[in-house]
Amino acid sequence: MTASEPTSTLERNLMIVPGPLDPPARLLMGPGPISAYPSVLRAMSTPLVGQYDPFMTATMNETQELYRGVWATRNEATLLVDGTSRAGIEAALISLLRPGDRVLVPVFGRFGHLLAEIAERAMTEVHTIETAWGQVFPTSAIEDAIVRVRPAVLALVHGDTSTTMAQPLDEIGAICARHGVLFYSDATASLGGNAFETDAWGLDAATAGLQKCLGGPSGSAPLTLSERAVEVIRARGRIEAGIREEGDPEASDFIRSNYFDLGMILDYWGPRRLNHHTEATSMLWAARECARLMLIEGRDATIARHALAGEAMLAGVRALGLGIFGDVAHKMNNVVAVEIPEGVPGEAVRAALLDDFGIEIGTSFGPLHGRVWRIGTMGYNARPDAVLTTLAALETVLGRFGRRVPRGGGVEAASDVYRAA
Amino acid sequence: MTASEPTSTLERNLMIVPGPLDPPARLLMGPGPISAYPSVLRAMSTPLVGQYDPFMTATMNETQELYRGVWATRNEATLLVDGTSRAGIEAALISLLRPGDRVLVPVFGRFGHLLAEIAERAMTEVHTIETAWGQVFPTSAIEDAIVRVRPAVLALVHGDTSTTMAQPLDEIGAICARHGVLFYSDATASLGGNAFETDAWGLDAATAGLQKCLGGPSGSAPLTLSERAVEVIRARGRIEAGIREEGDPEASDFIRSNYFDLGMILDYWGPRRLNHHTEATSMLWAARECARLMLIEGRDATIARHALAGEAMLAGVRALGLGIFGDVAHKMNNVVAVEIPEGVPGEAVRAALLDDFGIEIGTSFGPLHGRVWRIGTMGYNARPDAVLTTLAALETVLGRFGRRVPRGGGVEAASDVYRAA
Repeated sequence: MTASEPTSTLERNLMIVPGPLDPPARLLMGPGPISAYPSVLRAMSTPLVGQYDPFMTATMNETQELYRGVWATRNEATLLVDGTSRAGIEAALISLLRPGDRVLVPVFGRFGHLLAEIAERAMTEVHTIETAWGQVFPTSAIEDAIVRVRPAVLALVHGDTSTTMAQPLDEIGAICARHGVLFYSDATASLGGNAFETDAWGLDAATAGLQKCLGGPSGSAPLTLSERAVEVIRARGRIEAGIREEGDPEASDFIRSNYFDLGMILDYWGPRRLNHHTEATSMLWAARECARLMLIEGRDATIARHALAGEAMLAGVRALGLGIFGDVAHKMNNVVAVEIPEGVPGEAVRAALLDDFGIEIGTSFGPLHGRVWRIGTMGYNARPDAVLTTLAALETVLGRFGRRVPRGGGVEAASDVYRAA
Repeated sequence: MTASEPTSTLERNLMIVPGPLDPPARLLMGPGPISAYPSVLRAMSTPLVGQYDPFMTATMNETQELYRGVWATRNEATLLVDGTSRAGIEAALISLLRPGDRVLVPVFGRFGHLLAEIAERAMTEVHTIETAWGQVFPTSAIEDAIVRVRPAVLALVHGDTSTTMAQPLDEIGAICARHGVLFYSDATASLGGNAFETDAWGLDAATAGLQKCLGGPSGSAPLTLSERAVEVIRARGRIEAGIREEGDPEASDFIRSNYFDLGMILDYWGPRRLNHHTEATSMLWAARECARLMLIEGRDATIARHALAGEAMLAGVRALGLGIFGDVAHKMNNVVAVEIPEGVPGEAVRAALLDDFGIEIGTSFGPLHGRVWRIGTMGYNARPDAVLTTLAALETVLGRFGRRVPRGGGVEAASDVYRAA
């Protein structure tokens, strides 16, 4: 067999090479990913420039400054991790925590379990506290656990789409500072659609993704670090072999990952511009456009638009006679968990919405699986027409499955919210 | 201070939000990243669909099949890691190697050091052998080291852009199989532009990126695993908390990363479709298009186009009287290291090419820094007009810096190569 034979065979096996992509039209009203802003999609088709082109480094700097606006922070160490939102989480946790360090993870949904999981993989000593799905923690419960566990890091999800709850964070930073604990939050699902004040709330590290309220595709993880967090990371500094120079740091308790070593990623984004990964240029273009759109609209205005869309969707599903799961007072703006009525086949409803209307709403994880649909209103789709179209389609499909619903009631109730705004 | 004050301050500090992206025109003729194929850029602006949309899962399956064609393999476990090429490397090494395992890394350039570095971070016992930059290893030297070290994994760069050398791999797989060693290769810089036969060469794992010969942006890492490699990974299986079900594996020697746990990534790409990360949809669109273009052109034809462009560029720079670094018999098709002539300021030449002609050629790392330029001909830019334009511009700039070069000689020599093809 010559080296080229398998190729030809494989090519024959492929029979025909498929044509260009042509996805069906979709209105993505689930818990994310959601339909990206059209201008973010356009930004992704922008031609590439070289890794150290003056335009590239200037755009990296500019994108950092835009994300300082998004995060409401003055943190110099504000950048993107090249991967999905969980790449940002792992980079933060593995860089802040040494093997054996104690970390406290309050779990109020699936993504709390994920933080604990990622910390366990980093060989840390993970302590969790849990509350029922659909609830958040009183601040006192978190402080009590901090006093008991004395962790190096508190790792706390802000908005957990699995339950739709948003944990109040505004008093947690001061508590962490008092107890000498680094405060990390996963803001993947909340950033851009809910208040998030990195500096005012005393966060030491926070990470997100583009595919929720920021209105972009998954694949880039915005991250910000306080000076205190940067000091912890710098103390573990190690420049990789192959580009290390005399006098460069070589800590023995180096970070147990090259790709997620935030010290090296900082040196790549910072003035040293030390080669690390090759920045994912098209994702940078997308991330820049997501932040730019938010700051053009205005940060407060974008969050207010999400609050209004969330309120309209909530009023609409309630007017269709559907129950809401969880503590509505702590619901995130951008997603609602709607109880599937008795006798209605939840998955068949979702399939009908997708097949007949091109509308996607979400299923659920774990204890909520089969019990609720999750309907999102975020990013580009936090719009009146997206809310009303989804409610009209949902009413039609519920009727088809024999559920009596007030005709036009959902659309009317949502319109009332918009009219009153 | 209310929560919203810092935002307003920051927004004021931003002064004005910048406009849409508008990068300068660039012909990227360095060692990568290079200019993406126009249809790959267009594919990236394709609207998104949901994570479990039938179109999404069908496209993931289709992309796996396309990459089996690219890799010349029948490996079921052929997929994308969501990150840059070094994310793929880390996923492969951290999933195949347990802490304390021995790994052998033959180093013939910077990227061999990177493999060693990533393996060290994974707390493995790293053994290296080195050869001079510009050379490759005789197969016997690798076999001797395998016999001496008895590693669990041989980790070997295929094409190292830092030196432009391509290590012959065709006999290594059989040697590894004979000694019970898993054979991993980093094909980031070579795949798509040089022969690479995953199955015929007996590879157990190989990874790449899009930003070299595949003609896409950085940010997605194609990866393929043999059945033997999958077995090793499955033996360390652990489904993450939050979605773990009764009877799911929970190995104690689990992989020390969640994001790079190839077992979980396989379950996401495979029929179980277990939620892991949220697939970076736009990068998937790009990766699919890169593979599709290669298979439409034909795998052998694409590699032949790279060989021809490389030959033309080599003839062109030689005809300009410039020396070539390294063992030309083992040069990769897609990049050449050109010696910077005595008295010519290397960085000023690069700057003039970029500023006056919009053409980027590459600088170098480590021992070659300041000694050679690296000129690439890959992906979209493995084209006659790109080769000739670069040579014409280089001739002009060299003349400007007082270097006597035969007028039109580089272009003529390269044209001769194309005419003779």
